[in-house]
Amino acid sequence: MNRPAIVLAHLDGMECFNADDHAALGAVGELLDTDALSRWDDPRADELLARAEVIVGHWGCPPIDGALLDRAPDLGLVAYAAGTVKGTIAPEVMDRVRVTSGANANAAPVAEFTLAMILLANKNAFMARDLIRSPEHFDAVQDPAHPVGNFNKTIGIIGASLIGRRVIELLRAFPALSVAVYDPFLSADEAARLGVTKMELDELCASSQIVSIHAPDLPSTGHMVGAEQLAAMPTGATLINTARGRLLDHDALTAEIAAGRLYAILDVTDPEPLPDGHLLRSSSNVFLTPHIAGSQGTELRRMSQYAAEEIRRYVAGEPGINVITRAQLDRLA
Amino acid sequence: MNRPAIVLAHLDGMECFNADDHAALGAVGELLDTDALSRWDDPRADELLARAEVIVGHWGCPPIDGALLDRAPDLGLVAYAAGTVKGTIAPEVMDRVRVTSGANANAAPVAEFTLAMILLANKNAFMARDLIRSPEHFDAVQDPAHPVGNFNKTIGIIGASLIGRRVIELLRAFPALSVAVYDPFLSADEAARLGVTKMELDELCASSQIVSIHAPDLPSTGHMVGAEQLAAMPTGATLINTARGRLLDHDALTAEIAAGRLYAILDVTDPEPLPDGHLLRSSSNVFLTPHIAGSQGTELRRMSQYAAEEIRRYVAGEPGINVITRAQLDRLA
Repeated sequence: MNRPAIVLAHLDGMECFNADDHAALGAVGELLDTDALSRWDDPRADELLARAEVIVGHWGCPPIDGALLDRAPDLGLVAYAAGTVKGTIAPEVMDRVRVTSGANANAAPVAEFTLAMILLANKNAFMARDLIRSPEHFDAVQDPAHPVGNFNKTIGIIGASLIGRRVIELLRAFPALSVAVYDPFLSADEAARLGVTKMELDELCASSQIVSIHAPDLPSTGHMVGAEQLAAMPTGATLINTARGRLLDHDALTAEIAAGRLYAILDVTDPEPLPDGHLLRSSSNVFLTPHIAGSQGTELRRMSQYAAEEIRRYVAGEPGINVITRAQLDRLA
Repeated sequence: MNRPAIVLAHLDGMECFNADDHAALGAVGELLDTDALSRWDDPRADELLARAEVIVGHWGCPPIDGALLDRAPDLGLVAYAAGTVKGTIAPEVMDRVRVTSGANANAAPVAEFTLAMILLANKNAFMARDLIRSPEHFDAVQDPAHPVGNFNKTIGIIGASLIGRRVIELLRAFPALSVAVYDPFLSADEAARLGVTKMELDELCASSQIVSIHAPDLPSTGHMVGAEQLAAMPTGATLINTARGRLLDHDALTAEIAAGRLYAILDVTDPEPLPDGHLLRSSSNVFLTPHIAGSQGTELRRMSQYAAEEIRRYVAGEPGINVITRAQLDRLA
């Protein structure tokens, strides 16, 4: 098994793995077919699965469960080269083969996107750009009661997840910004080590000029940012959501946006996409993007390089970088 | 002179120094009047200048020249708490008193703004936001020939100025981005120390997905980014200008923007503001902001803290942080 047989499983047609990615995977194993399987009833599937020692999954990977494993007797590793494995890889698979997730590799672009949005939201850059397009405006929006600027501001991070921690790490280059974190699983020691102030959710919302959501999408986290939390945010504050739409009460947010009291930067929504004509699609105090914070374009190269490294480690008998176990599932995004 | 007499000189009325700034300055000297002088023919000027040991200048500071120094016999320090002193403080002043500039303090917000714009330009976030507002679009703009993403991209920095260097420093947290620099005064050794690739201007434009201007505004740098440099930039690349409009040939840029070949992020323009109806004000491939990259709002606190530190050093007989000499003037922004 020096060069394990690799089967690709992901959506067809979208911009996905390219020749560079295939080369990265081909350097650590034998890529059986560069045309990925997007359905397990593909006519090629039986033969490919019979030989597969590694499955590299990516967006649109068809569900992998115990029955699928029965068709792939030599399989030892599912290297999922994207974020969450939930809904794609069934828990029982983790008991039988090594499952790794690229959530850490995918955390980088989301955190970078969030950092950029924090820096520009603090400057009110989006509002300034909208205003400048109308002929009567040129000056920046300056409200002395809610001064702009990346100095003496508190950034509230909801969730010390992989992405949340990477945002915290990136914010270290900006010592004039303080960081508050809400995460029920974060210990006081770890908060101190991260250089952040641990707060309860409502206190964090009341104390932060920017609140950014990086919590996992669990039954217990639905609408965790609701009317009460939004009402606690100071006037002129900005809410950023790059996690999942379900974490945020969109009706409550819409009311605050309609009142002009808050700003929002939304890369995910509920529903997604929002219906035509929805206020959050057109308001000048909303910066809405179509779920682009995660790996896009060249950032997919990071994911295939990551999957190749997981394969190399598996072949070498080394521990994986990010092995997902059944026990972790109820805490993970 | 343990607590030198301080005179404030800056524009009246705009959001400028506040009580916190006055407290910062009051901690190191005697602030003679918290109402700044914005004209030297102010009825208070003669008496204030007669007592002044330090002038703290800021935006809209009336010009300081030799004749003004004659009215301020005890003056030893002009602590300019903003960016360039050019056009405000005459060269002969630097021969007679210590002149310090807050250009290094003002470099921080400009570099931060630039970093954020680089990260979002690489994601095509601005275009995606514009598109999503029209009902027929939701998906991100994905052109396989010009893939988005903050991975395997080259960022071209024109000018290893204070701001250019701070951008380079901030980009160190993003190892998947390479940095190329054009600066005729940058030695190969220093480029290596900064971890950047030194390039000639045209080569840099041809090699970079993002080109960001951080050069000084000198007679020799006018239109340094012109038709030839813009034509060298790859299709889909982004030009960022947070320096001065004069450095960029706006007619040449307008042609590239009209052709849809390049993107531009402009915080400064020539003229500034651009006239109503100018293509660069309304194009979806332009992100135009009204000169907000520099210190705004809370960021002014950094400038007054900086000026206070220069005063403390002056009183203590220590060297200044950023003393401007006549000899430097032809290289500085």
